[in-house]
Amino acid sequence: MKRKFLGIDIGGTNLRGKIISEKGDVLGEGKTRSDAHMGISRLMENLAGFIKGFAGEEISAIGIGIPGVFDRRNGTLVQAPNIANTKNFPFAAALSDGIGTATPVFIENDASCAALGEYLAGAGRGSDSMVMITLGTGFGGGIILDGRLWSGEDGFAGEVGHITIDPSGSLCSCGARGCIETYVSQVAIKRIVREHTELGKKLAGTEESAIPERLAELAREKDRAAISIWNDFGTNLGVGISILVNILDVKTVVVGGGLSGAWELFIGKTLEETERRCLGGAARGLRIKRAVLGDDSGVLGACYVAKSGLGESS
Amino acid sequence: MKRKFLGIDIGGTNLRGKIISEKGDVLGEGKTRSDAHMGISRLMENLAGFIKGFAGEEISAIGIGIPGVFDRRNGTLVQAPNIANTKNFPFAAALSDGIGTATPVFIENDASCAALGEYLAGAGRGSDSMVMITLGTGFGGGIILDGRLWSGEDGFAGEVGHITIDPSGSLCSCGARGCIETYVSQVAIKRIVREHTELGKKLAGTEESAIPERLAELAREKDRAAISIWNDFGTNLGVGISILVNILDVKTVVVGGGLSGAWELFIGKTLEETERRCLGGAARGLRIKRAVLGDDSGVLGACYVAKSGLGESS
Repeated sequence: MKRKFLGIDIGGTNLRGKIISEKGDVLGEGKTRSDAHMGISRLMENLAGFIKGFAGEEISAIGIGIPGVFDRRNGTLVQAPNIANTKNFPFAAALSDGIGTATPVFIENDASCAALGEYLAGAGRGSDSMVMITLGTGFGGGIILDGRLWSGEDGFAGEVGHITIDPSGSLCSCGARGCIETYVSQVAIKRIVREHTELGKKLAGTEESAIPERLAELAREKDRAAISIWNDFGTNLGVGISILVNILDVKTVVVGGGLSGAWELFIGKTLEETERRCLGGAARGLRIKRAVLGDDSGVLGACYVAKSGLGESS
Repeated sequence: MKRKFLGIDIGGTNLRGKIISEKGDVLGEGKTRSDAHMGISRLMENLAGFIKGFAGEEISAIGIGIPGVFDRRNGTLVQAPNIANTKNFPFAAALSDGIGTATPVFIENDASCAALGEYLAGAGRGSDSMVMITLGTGFGGGIILDGRLWSGEDGFAGEVGHITIDPSGSLCSCGARGCIETYVSQVAIKRIVREHTELGKKLAGTEESAIPERLAELAREKDRAAISIWNDFGTNLGVGISILVNILDVKTVVVGGGLSGAWELFIGKTLEETERRCLGGAARGLRIKRAVLGDDSGVLGACYVAKSGLGESS
């Protein structure tokens, strides 16, 4: 029997699903509301309903990308900033109750799914090992070593947003100081603009969520303060990338997420700083590439999580 | 036929060798001068002679740990601070010429060998994944993921000494600023003492190589300035460990090398800082352990490099 794999990406707004074949061809897809802001119970109901909608498809395995920290050891969602009232929620058990089938389910962090998606079907195609950095609300990451997702002993690997780049720096939501996420993320951009006297005035009244895009427009209009903020953003991203490359010696780094839309405003400084900080050998042949799949990376990656979770066809 | 594996650790002063059985039992060992300070040609002669001395042993494979950056892709020793006149030396080819046998040779960085040694026969026994940090002249590292040494795409992984912990900090020998090696290593301790008005005076006249040990003695005698330096050392080590743990989610970190002799002077601060900076999930069950094999870790690790290089017995 030809196997089919269902991948689901849980987002703050939508649930997105795709079905792929053994060869990776997309056979079908779907989308529905996640209602994540209404809390985890509502989300679980929507998710179970969404999965049941694919029941006619004879799915061999399901992969799910979740926007939070998932504890593989005991199946709990430790935290998920975008799902209301979620802390140590027994995700795996609740899902199993909700869908009531014996289809195997494999769960990964959404940034890891995005990494796997770009690795197999996007900017990382053809590479051996890769790190993907997702510049969204926070600074997410996924690590692929020798073709396989490295999730860590309990599934917590890839928390690259909490790489310290300044031990006495800004306070991070995790409680520590100077995590790279406090310099290179949407949250960081918003804070930096608020704290900047001149830009704070220029962007006063801009809706909070639109600030990064407005800051990019200002930089494109040659506003010097805005350019300087993107330069610092790029430099700090380069510090983070060099840390990952010096530790892992991967030759491909893919950068995606919403803020990668400002690519040309920061990438020059990123390359400069990476060049400065990577040891010679590790830097040789290093390619820093922009992600190409957009929102599809996560859902495709979830399909691959299902496939690799099940292993080779027997 | 029962297989035997020869491991050799190239040190600044000595070449050390051990032979292990398939099961890991030590069947023999040897030691000779490396004369590394006399340059790479002399070292290669000594190494070839040393290996030939084991010729009667019917060795299945040889593993070699080298104190420098080895480029697996083209077999060159990119740099080795403790071997005179070594830059981009064609190590693999020269060794093959020198020993003239068909025995397979596998080469790894010495810090990676030490990690493998501690993992299989020392403080890391029983763990799944592990990072080892070697606090010697510099700050070395080796990474074991799911039981296998992770060397990177070209063999340059584990350069953890060049993790940036302060982008505008002290200048490192690599040319960048603020690498952890400039804060947590013998070289760092010597620099910090030299720059410290009070301790600089107290330790004036102390032989350069004895400074870290003298600084430890002063701290044990309750010298407040010395205690403060070891505290900072421990804190900075904790920053480095937290970066590794947040990226990799390994549950075992082993710390070895000469400076680990000052363990009780820094480990408290290291644990405190690691606790502060590791994300909850990644920190759970994390064990930071002192290496137990001393100089044996590198040579035993080299034996295991030989064994794993050759693969399973057929």
